[in-house]
Amino acid sequence: MKYNNLDEIAGKLEAIEESIIFKLLARAQYKRNNQAYEKSFFDEMLLSIEEVFESCNRYEIIEEVPFSDVINLSYEKTVDLTENVKLAYFNLLDDLCETGEDPENYGSSTEHDIYALQAISERIHFGAYYVAWAKYNQDPEKYYKFIQEANYDALYDLLTRKDVEEKILKRVEEKVNLYQKGANPKYRKIINPKIIVDFYKESVIPLTKKGEVEHLINSANE
Amino acid sequence: MKYNNLDEIAGKLEAIEESIIFKLLARAQYKRNNQAYEKSFFDEMLLSIEEVFESCNRYEIIEEVPFSDVINLSYEKTVDLTENVKLAYFNLLDDLCETGEDPENYGSSTEHDIYALQAISERIHFGAYYVAWAKYNQDPEKYYKFIQEANYDALYDLLTRKDVEEKILKRVEEKVNLYQKGANPKYRKIINPKIIVDFYKESVIPLTKKGEVEHLINSANE
Repeated sequence: MKYNNLDEIAGKLEAIEESIIFKLLARAQYKRNNQAYEKSFFDEMLLSIEEVFESCNRYEIIEEVPFSDVINLSYEKTVDLTENVKLAYFNLLDDLCETGEDPENYGSSTEHDIYALQAISERIHFGAYYVAWAKYNQDPEKYYKFIQEANYDALYDLLTRKDVEEKILKRVEEKVNLYQKGANPKYRKIINPKIIVDFYKESVIPLTKKGEVEHLINSANE
Repeated sequence: MKYNNLDEIAGKLEAIEESIIFKLLARAQYKRNNQAYEKSFFDEMLLSIEEVFESCNRYEIIEEVPFSDVINLSYEKTVDLTENVKLAYFNLLDDLCETGEDPENYGSSTEHDIYALQAISERIHFGAYYVAWAKYNQDPEKYYKFIQEANYDALYDLLTRKDVEEKILKRVEEKVNLYQKGANPKYRKIINPKIIVDFYKESVIPLTKKGEVEHLINSANE
């Protein structure tokens, strides 16, 4: 396995986290732009971009999962949380962005959506796979029985580390403040850190754990 | 004109600057990857991405200029500094990145190149156009004669504000430090701010002014 050291995995997750925060702050500069999603503008752009990335073999690694389902992958993604990611992200936009339409900025706004979604998805799918197996490898016996029983809730509890989660949320809050420290509020919308902290708490962390459990349970059938 | 207030233009440049710094720090995590450019991997990916953006009308606005010249634009870009931007960027990579090849990361590394290049180019082309005309409009008579004479050097001097440039460089340095403050050096390469400050000093600011002068001189023939 490419990553088996929990510290190193946490380091990688931390780097993606910085990228996520920065991308969300960039997206927040545009309005909610509901119509960009209704008019399939968003879907078409996402598909086109993912086709480019597919031609560069982006989806060959475990943590990169395309959102568009027309892309033919050389191997099946056993854990695919992209639909959950998209749903959570669109909910987040309601809090992150000013209501309204900004039709002349649909292109930029959608581009920021795509970058943010890709970073969030990478965080969740990377964490789901590598955290699951690194934790499992620390004490396989503890997990074995629940994997055989496909006991979702027991595995979810075993994988949960409240203290680590608290540390992540605290760090996210600090970084949102840090990155906005130099910004000029006259020209830049300043975001309440709570919005991004809550997104981590209610979506990013739980979805990563959902993916961890799915990887472990799937392994029983492999 | 969309932007005519120098403060507002400076605010927009400041926002792009944050994006540039963040993208450069992200690219710095990969090796120099010389071969990704020799093998046309980079050019093909850039072209594909720009084709997607063209289909979303990205290049309809003044500050967005495609790097790939096969793209058909609905109107000609009178000022196109993309070749200068690319050259300056590749020089920067020598200082920014660790020497060597990282073939399994060519995709990610190239993706970061493209995002960074787009942000740098946006900064330069946006500044070139709007700063030139905002400064011109403050005192058209001062500029008029030199525009008629196509006096490049005199216009370059007129447009130069050493105190503003110093302020920008100071701010860039602070932000490079700020954005790396939370980073874990065990898993993340930390960049000496001087590298990015020098890039601003020797490339971003002079190229923006070059573009400003070109816009003003071109206007005499319009």
